[in-house]
Amino acid sequence: MPPSPIRKLAPLANAAKSRGVKVYHLNIGQPDLETPEPIRARLSTITEKTYAYSPSEGTPEYLDSLRQYYHKRGIDLKPGQIIATTGGSEAVQFALMAVGDPGDEVMVVEPFYTNYRSFAAMAGMKLNTLTAHGDDGFHAPPLSVWEKALTEKTRAVLLCNPSNPTGTVFSREEVVMVAQFCRDHGLFLISDEVYREFVYDGREATSALNLAGFEEIVIVVDSLSKRYSACGIRLGSIASRNSEVMDTMNRLAMGRLSPPGLAQRIAPGALLLGPEYTEGVVTEYQKRRDILCEGLGKIPGVFVRKPEGAFYMVVRLPIEDSEDFAAWLLTSFSYNGSTVMVAPAPGFYATEGLGKDEVRIAYVLKQDDLEASIDILAHALTAYRQARGLPAL
Amino acid sequence: MPPSPIRKLAPLANAAKSRGVKVYHLNIGQPDLETPEPIRARLSTITEKTYAYSPSEGTPEYLDSLRQYYHKRGIDLKPGQIIATTGGSEAVQFALMAVGDPGDEVMVVEPFYTNYRSFAAMAGMKLNTLTAHGDDGFHAPPLSVWEKALTEKTRAVLLCNPSNPTGTVFSREEVVMVAQFCRDHGLFLISDEVYREFVYDGREATSALNLAGFEEIVIVVDSLSKRYSACGIRLGSIASRNSEVMDTMNRLAMGRLSPPGLAQRIAPGALLLGPEYTEGVVTEYQKRRDILCEGLGKIPGVFVRKPEGAFYMVVRLPIEDSEDFAAWLLTSFSYNGSTVMVAPAPGFYATEGLGKDEVRIAYVLKQDDLEASIDILAHALTAYRQARGLPAL
Repeated sequence: MPPSPIRKLAPLANAAKSRGVKVYHLNIGQPDLETPEPIRARLSTITEKTYAYSPSEGTPEYLDSLRQYYHKRGIDLKPGQIIATTGGSEAVQFALMAVGDPGDEVMVVEPFYTNYRSFAAMAGMKLNTLTAHGDDGFHAPPLSVWEKALTEKTRAVLLCNPSNPTGTVFSREEVVMVAQFCRDHGLFLISDEVYREFVYDGREATSALNLAGFEEIVIVVDSLSKRYSACGIRLGSIASRNSEVMDTMNRLAMGRLSPPGLAQRIAPGALLLGPEYTEGVVTEYQKRRDILCEGLGKIPGVFVRKPEGAFYMVVRLPIEDSEDFAAWLLTSFSYNGSTVMVAPAPGFYATEGLGKDEVRIAYVLKQDDLEASIDILAHALTAYRQARGLPAL
Repeated sequence: MPPSPIRKLAPLANAAKSRGVKVYHLNIGQPDLETPEPIRARLSTITEKTYAYSPSEGTPEYLDSLRQYYHKRGIDLKPGQIIATTGGSEAVQFALMAVGDPGDEVMVVEPFYTNYRSFAAMAGMKLNTLTAHGDDGFHAPPLSVWEKALTEKTRAVLLCNPSNPTGTVFSREEVVMVAQFCRDHGLFLISDEVYREFVYDGREATSALNLAGFEEIVIVVDSLSKRYSACGIRLGSIASRNSEVMDTMNRLAMGRLSPPGLAQRIAPGALLLGPEYTEGVVTEYQKRRDILCEGLGKIPGVFVRKPEGAFYMVVRLPIEDSEDFAAWLLTSFSYNGSTVMVAPAPGFYATEGLGKDEVRIAYVLKQDDLEASIDILAHALTAYRQARGLPAL
């Protein structure tokens, strides 16, 4: 169980703050957007005197609100085909434990969401990784690569779409290719769609629940708390039309008694949000993405392809050791009394040696803060190369 | 991963309810007591506009409130020696994952809290069980039994004190015996103390954190939500003075990002509760226990020893198959339009064949409901024996 590459630098950040340095957090996907008012307003409706366990599969009210959400996206789920989880994190854990035994393998495209490693470790499973490349916008490798990587122990593909950390939105053709690959080889497709709403330039994310003919193999991970900028309430869900899978996940759900109760009480407030809510959020993130891509693109030696979704990007920097650079930013650098915190990319790869010249950046800060961050990074790169004896760019 | 013996009869209970039968829930530890007002009142103080992730180890405010709670009980914990968890459930999971690898074993006294089985399964660990007996009030087996059961793969003892499901409060001598056994054999002592406050007849529960000389091996599981009748908010904690153990658990905590945020915001309200709160709760449960023990003791063929703590008891009934009896109560019986739901005891044993004449009863209902439940059980036992062709008692 490795420490989180996103969070392990936290002590250095705290030390910087206590020295009076302002730290811009580009390292974590904690949006600064408000949790929508209709969700927050429901706090005042919690008038029960005893905060009792909810059913282990979630409250009927919360589950019904999720089914209504999916219905609006052309996905009809019957009762029993979706259960509540403690964030998207628990949903991934349940999915892995439902499809594999200790020693089994799950295929993922790297760079991948770093906590997949922890969830696989907790399930005793091994990640079997296919490498995607920044030059291709981190899109899916061709079928031949998947076929070649398949082993006898592979039980599933875990696809994050839109992707954290790359911001890649896999096209319908890519998702169908992966789904067919899974069906052909008796694998499950675990589709982590927590960033489904965050897609730009008029794109639409393809939900694996929308594909016909793959009902028995598809398991979809979702996160209400991520969708509505309410990360702290820890509320997600997992859905499948495979009743055996749902039966296993229900047993796992019983094992931890119930998902967070207060969160389930306020979550149905999301039903009051019209399409303008998502449009507003998407417009805001797209603007931030554009500011960041334009600003970063002007820094010598920096390579970035415009991400298509989520609110992350993996950026190539003119450095040789992003772990060292990220720590140096917090311990040895400031510009106008400020610095930035980034997530070194090696933690998002399983293959040793990859990501050493990359960092993950989350664009969850407002415009002014992003602009300041770009400025800081530009100065930091110059100073860092000097400090490490690298030639000026 | 077996279905929860406490929850798996839920569909039968729902069917009974839809037939118009009132079901008294003696099967689950969901107290009907109110969540204390100072905790509920804090909901209105949640005025932040963004419900952000908390630190993975918990908010400083919540952790500080826990340290104050322990201090009042003579236990001083430094920052870093306690972290927040998603209920006591996650605390047990973290503890098992921190001390063992897949294939390792943890010793437990049976009957044990049934979800220990799920948590061990999730950690890939095996339960190594020592059997306690109702005739001894389910107290700990003598040291020789522990020594004999020890294997090369044993990594820890998991002791629930006060015990769910038996209500047994292990004496200081028993806890010290187990702790010494652990220390002698290089094992950790995971002490699940979520029912610490619920002890009767003037008893006091011994916290393993209060024992001198065992600092390096003790890990204590706790549950704020259970302590304050707020089960649904899913908030617990795990504490140890072993910094290596805390380091591992911090990594596990990072892996799931953060514990429930709204719960952490309201939990510190518990600091406003004086000793009269616990005294009131204990008085109430003790009264309920006495009603139940007295009433059950009058039913022919029923054996019960007065439990010393928690709000459960394992009762021996004049039946041969408690799984069948529990299902029959829900499908085929009612008295004055009502029936009871109990948890069959075999789910609390690992040893095949044990618990077939026992059920676990939770005394979390108010006096009238408990009295009605006793009456129903008395009539049900007569009718059930007749239905199954057993002689009248």
